[in-house]
Amino acid sequence: MSTSGGSYSVIVRLEISNETMFFNVAQSIHNAGGDVIAIDMVSNRKTSTIRDITVGIASKSLEQQLIDSIAKVPGVQVINVSDRTFLMHLGGKLEVKSKVTVKNREDLSHVYTPGVARVCTAIEQDPSKAYSLTIKRNTVAVITDGTAVLGLGDIGPLASMPVMEGKAILFKEMANVDSFPICLDTKDTEEIIKIVKAIAPVFGGINLEDISSPRCFEIEQRLKEELDIPVFHDDQHGTAVVMLAGLINALKLVGKQMSDIKVVFSGAGAAGIACTRILLAAGVQNVIGVTRSVGVLHRDGVYTNPMHQWYANHTNPNHVTGTLSDAIVGADVFIGLSGPGVLSVEDVKKMAPDAIVFAMANPDPEIKPEDAEGYVRIIATGRSDYPNQLNNVLCFPGIFRGALDCQATMINEEMKLAAAYAIASIVSDEELNEQNIIPSVFNPQVVPSVRKNVIQAAIETGVAKKIPREFR
Amino acid sequence: MSTSGGSYSVIVRLEISNETMFFNVAQSIHNAGGDVIAIDMVSNRKTSTIRDITVGIASKSLEQQLIDSIAKVPGVQVINVSDRTFLMHLGGKLEVKSKVTVKNREDLSHVYTPGVARVCTAIEQDPSKAYSLTIKRNTVAVITDGTAVLGLGDIGPLASMPVMEGKAILFKEMANVDSFPICLDTKDTEEIIKIVKAIAPVFGGINLEDISSPRCFEIEQRLKEELDIPVFHDDQHGTAVVMLAGLINALKLVGKQMSDIKVVFSGAGAAGIACTRILLAAGVQNVIGVTRSVGVLHRDGVYTNPMHQWYANHTNPNHVTGTLSDAIVGADVFIGLSGPGVLSVEDVKKMAPDAIVFAMANPDPEIKPEDAEGYVRIIATGRSDYPNQLNNVLCFPGIFRGALDCQATMINEEMKLAAAYAIASIVSDEELNEQNIIPSVFNPQVVPSVRKNVIQAAIETGVAKKIPREFR
Repeated sequence: MSTSGGSYSVIVRLEISNETMFFNVAQSIHNAGGDVIAIDMVSNRKTSTIRDITVGIASKSLEQQLIDSIAKVPGVQVINVSDRTFLMHLGGKLEVKSKVTVKNREDLSHVYTPGVARVCTAIEQDPSKAYSLTIKRNTVAVITDGTAVLGLGDIGPLASMPVMEGKAILFKEMANVDSFPICLDTKDTEEIIKIVKAIAPVFGGINLEDISSPRCFEIEQRLKEELDIPVFHDDQHGTAVVMLAGLINALKLVGKQMSDIKVVFSGAGAAGIACTRILLAAGVQNVIGVTRSVGVLHRDGVYTNPMHQWYANHTNPNHVTGTLSDAIVGADVFIGLSGPGVLSVEDVKKMAPDAIVFAMANPDPEIKPEDAEGYVRIIATGRSDYPNQLNNVLCFPGIFRGALDCQATMINEEMKLAAAYAIASIVSDEELNEQNIIPSVFNPQVVPSVRKNVIQAAIETGVAKKIPREFR
Repeated sequence: MSTSGGSYSVIVRLEISNETMFFNVAQSIHNAGGDVIAIDMVSNRKTSTIRDITVGIASKSLEQQLIDSIAKVPGVQVINVSDRTFLMHLGGKLEVKSKVTVKNREDLSHVYTPGVARVCTAIEQDPSKAYSLTIKRNTVAVITDGTAVLGLGDIGPLASMPVMEGKAILFKEMANVDSFPICLDTKDTEEIIKIVKAIAPVFGGINLEDISSPRCFEIEQRLKEELDIPVFHDDQHGTAVVMLAGLINALKLVGKQMSDIKVVFSGAGAAGIACTRILLAAGVQNVIGVTRSVGVLHRDGVYTNPMHQWYANHTNPNHVTGTLSDAIVGADVFIGLSGPGVLSVEDVKKMAPDAIVFAMANPDPEIKPEDAEGYVRIIATGRSDYPNQLNNVLCFPGIFRGALDCQATMINEEMKLAAAYAIASIVSDEELNEQNIIPSVFNPQVVPSVRKNVIQAAIETGVAKKIPREFR
């Protein structure tokens, strides 16, 4: 039930004194519009019992009213309340299963001692055999230090686990990639690099997740140089790939070319830099970066933040200066990875005709789609409750599926571009419109076509150690 | 089929020239007593095709004859042969599965963003919630550096993977413990300690495996002190627990007491020290250690090897000196963790009546059971092809099941003793005889009774953070 769809359910853990009749509890639930679905005895004490009551309610908004109503019953104490989200996380969301059965001594002698010794020796003699005889070929590490988790910031490795488990679930459900969360109790760049290198033998790929900048840059760069398996910081490159996929389709709609557009970029963090890099790689020539702290980034400026300096050195060919309001004049595209309210309606009005706005700040976009409506041709956000959701889930399962299947030694720029074009291609010309520039994360074509494009690009750029049968 | 019981199957990868009719191959297989079960096309080349032929044969002994027969066919080249053991390892033996389904946007919003943020925050505010809301409570790391794998020695982390995956399978199949292999590409003691501490947040327990001594001692000791989850070096303590379980039942049979027996111990390695410690903890007073290099270890001796020194300081109360042949006189029990042929028939003849011999060296015991027969009352080995197999699989699944279920902060001596008595107790007085002092690893009672005893001991010694319902 905890994973079934439909109405909202809550589990309330109650301590009920032996003097109190359960009927009174049931009535209080009924009065609050709740419906008793199940009752589980947790423990019996001398003068009371602890029970978990599963209650169905019409909406989350009724939860507090339900709790209040139950709490009013004499002799009843509300110990704990878990809603459906918590229920789905109870006991963790992953399990490690055996793919072989061990039912008798003979099975045991094959999968474990003594038989396993010959398999070990085969790998010792030819390490490449690890890809056929171990889980390496299908296993990705989801690695974080818990310093930049969602919008929550530095919550530490333990608290980051539900996100990393969720990521592992998506790897498995979307692309049948086995992945395992590694949540590191250290923030030391060198230590993280050392650790990831040391645990690498088990894995066919490394997905870096929610590591704060600027450390994430050096960690990824160094690991890319020092490991022979793909290393991919999803917050940077997954975001960039999906953003580009959306832009490819948006430009189709408005009939503009990458090489001709003026893009104004708000936010020069890890994801911002990665998005800008991929825009330049995709042929965009006029990108202007703006930050709230220092305004428009330009070549004559001097910046303490190395990311700002990189931005100033590689963008803004026309030496625009000033603030966002200055840069936005005549812009074809605005891309925001900054924060809520950065883009005003006045700014949007200054943009070129058929303006495209990707307001990707989470959870609150740079401008609310309802405010921009009428002044822009296309708007996309990171949110699932508006059209055109730019969601990393569109990228990482397929890009790793492809990288693993061709035993790629890295995920290079060409593979990222190929992934973006694959995602964009899922939306046919018939389906393509202002409200539908990007496929749903549940579109079953996404992973296979990203995989195909990524393998093709890996082979063409010479980073594929294995050529899958269908590409021979 | 690769995991089914019954007859032996082999996969032969052949390159077959286009001039050769497959019928000739089939005939060569038939002539060798083989039976074609399946044919898989691997790839098509200009002048030849590569195919995997799965062949059933009556026994492994027929394999070479089969290969020779196929190889004789003109235009056919045998590229590769995998037997059933290899087949069972193909693609690795583990997968990481989701326990929840993610079929629509609502599921996604609960297991991943935005819902997951509330779960993270709950853990950040109360870290103990990680035990209910993440995989921590049921997950054990199987950690090795690949330096002492089986009898193979230092084969490295990659080649050790099949063993660690096998261990993870046994954890899951025997005790429903989720475990994941961590094979470290470093032999540096300090680095290994740092790494294990850093990855600990995800895990509820640490199983150290196949790490060579003496490093294994410091690594385990330091991690025990610095982590608040159980750390267990199975090669040491699993071996000790199972050895003691066997001894408990052997002594029952011969009617002797722990406190009265004389035990001669051959081999003072990691497992030897652990076995000796648990014997002393179980009440044995007269243990004499012997090594091939320095003979009987005694208090007046001076030893460069710290393990030998420890042994000399803590055993041999009667200051026996000399060699194994001197020490063995009148011994009630011989325990060997050394090497083949260490114990001669002449030595055995010098032992006390109702002699007990545990010849645990793998794969070749200190004395062959058939040689000792007639001179000893009870003999046990580490082998599955003799009676009384002393196998670690009897211990580690149940001991971790118990430790996880009570959120034990460590696995202490009391818990190990409790595990040994639990294992011994499975063999009823009716079943107990010279050929049956230890239960089968497939006896379904083993894990539950080890678990129960271990939790009880953890509660009594105050290391249980959680009291399971049935113990309240």
